[in-house]
Amino acid sequence: MAQVLCDAGNHVLMWGRSQELVDEVNEKHTNSKYLEDSVLPVGLKATTSLSEAFEYSNIYVLAVPAQTLRENLTAWKSMVQPNALFISTLKGIEVSSMSRMTEIISEVLETQNIAIITGPNLANELVLRQPAGAVAAAPTIAIAEKVQHLFTTPYYRVYTSVDVLGCELAGAIKSVIALAVGMSIGMGYGENTQAMLITRGLNEVARLCAAHNADPLSAAGLAGMGDLVASCGSALSRNRTFGEVLGKSGSMEVAKTQVAKTVEGVASSSAVLEIAHRVGIEVPVIEAVADVVSGLLTPEQALDRLMEITTKAEIFIR
Amino acid sequence: MAQVLCDAGNHVLMWGRSQELVDEVNEKHTNSKYLEDSVLPVGLKATTSLSEAFEYSNIYVLAVPAQTLRENLTAWKSMVQPNALFISTLKGIEVSSMSRMTEIISEVLETQNIAIITGPNLANELVLRQPAGAVAAAPTIAIAEKVQHLFTTPYYRVYTSVDVLGCELAGAIKSVIALAVGMSIGMGYGENTQAMLITRGLNEVARLCAAHNADPLSAAGLAGMGDLVASCGSALSRNRTFGEVLGKSGSMEVAKTQVAKTVEGVASSSAVLEIAHRVGIEVPVIEAVADVVSGLLTPEQALDRLMEITTKAEIFIR
Repeated sequence: MAQVLCDAGNHVLMWGRSQELVDEVNEKHTNSKYLEDSVLPVGLKATTSLSEAFEYSNIYVLAVPAQTLRENLTAWKSMVQPNALFISTLKGIEVSSMSRMTEIISEVLETQNIAIITGPNLANELVLRQPAGAVAAAPTIAIAEKVQHLFTTPYYRVYTSVDVLGCELAGAIKSVIALAVGMSIGMGYGENTQAMLITRGLNEVARLCAAHNADPLSAAGLAGMGDLVASCGSALSRNRTFGEVLGKSGSMEVAKTQVAKTVEGVASSSAVLEIAHRVGIEVPVIEAVADVVSGLLTPEQALDRLMEITTKAEIFIR
Repeated sequence: MAQVLCDAGNHVLMWGRSQELVDEVNEKHTNSKYLEDSVLPVGLKATTSLSEAFEYSNIYVLAVPAQTLRENLTAWKSMVQPNALFISTLKGIEVSSMSRMTEIISEVLETQNIAIITGPNLANELVLRQPAGAVAAAPTIAIAEKVQHLFTTPYYRVYTSVDVLGCELAGAIKSVIALAVGMSIGMGYGENTQAMLITRGLNEVARLCAAHNADPLSAAGLAGMGDLVASCGSALSRNRTFGEVLGKSGSMEVAKTQVAKTVEGVASSSAVLEIAHRVGIEVPVIEAVADVVSGLLTPEQALDRLMEITTKAEIFIR
């Protein structure tokens, strides 16, 4: 994303904790651990100094793990410039509070000058400048358009939205649905089963959006469907891969050992379920994932339960 | 689909033109040309006799090539039983008249007792009884529920809809979008580009639905998103494969030679574009495909033009 911002004509300073990585970006213009031998823009600078980073600009693009956002912002609060704009690239729900990322920013920093940029943006393809699209969502169209202009390049198309809640929920829940899709692959099922889980999972997102007075069509946009389709298609998606191992082995322990200790869909699934139940929405795909993650059901039992639920009208939002 | 109907407890007689295939179904319970060594239900019978087929039941499930439907129905009209129900599994637009399949049925047979069943239902996975979902759409909820009951089995979930127009448009246009996705794969692009084309392509379907007073959310359902995701994920999809060869070679001639003379997305693209333009809807993804198919643009020029269009609000239906 830093490269996209450079390519769009901005001066960009990245902050990072690792001196080694910061030096590599400044000296070799690479990030070999994550982006192999791709050469980053020469104008892209990096620093480990927080004060240098916060003084450089009053537009901050946030890219830290979702569960660490509150703690980081609290530590950084005193360094923030006046009239700062915060742009979140984070996807997830804070498990301890069931908060969305922009809710945390607004709570900790007491500002409404917040936007998110989200969509099917796998880093390894973006760095090759392959054509991609995203949505910039903000409380006002003016902020959304500002973010759109900051990020737009010939290979990166940014659409605007004022449905922050819908786009943010969609982005958080896609990790949970990608886990379900991964499980079905691990259990040996093909495109029909995956497509059903994707479509019915996004139907749950749409109903959840509607129950929160957000736009159900955001679930069908780049933040929801787009991001989910890219995640499910990518062998690099940790949610999908974790689900695959889980579906094949039937064991959370095996998946945690073979893939990663935590992936976002695992961390978020129970919080997302709770958010749905609070507004009285049935979300069988999300619930299936939450029950597998918490050890209540095996992947097979979860899929059996899903298939047994009575089918209704496909769309029953309005 | 005949197997699904058998598994749901119906008595099913298939009609086909090929004596060889009909004999194989009756004697060996296989369809080796299309379904390899899968064993079909023993109760599934087949015939080459049209009169036998039309006398067997007054519920007819239609599965013929889209461009031959009118001609077939006209020939069959005199054999149809009173109060017959027609269930279409066809996806496409009749190029000569720009009609949807249910419009043709209603015109030729002068009935409104029509339904469609559609969704991500690749035959090679259905025959293995892998979990799948579909939508039964009809002018009334009573007809839709009748079709739902006819097809429901433990591995096949049928949702209902009264949005025939939306589901049918979505099913027809998915072939065109799958061509676009295939082209991007052929040009060497990855998940980000595919997800953008899928999402923005379905956004065009949603806007087209809204312009016809159909439900834009049908585009995000099993008939639209679901079917498209399965097509784009399957190496067996002729639309995707045709697009891939087209994207790689840049040549319609090569794709026609290597894949197939016509695929549904190629046949339908100009008709779909015309349907959109009649109601004043801009559909850049569909237009890009139509212009490549008709030789006006190379795949590369078409993608360049897509990326140059000014981005707007992501959702501007309501």
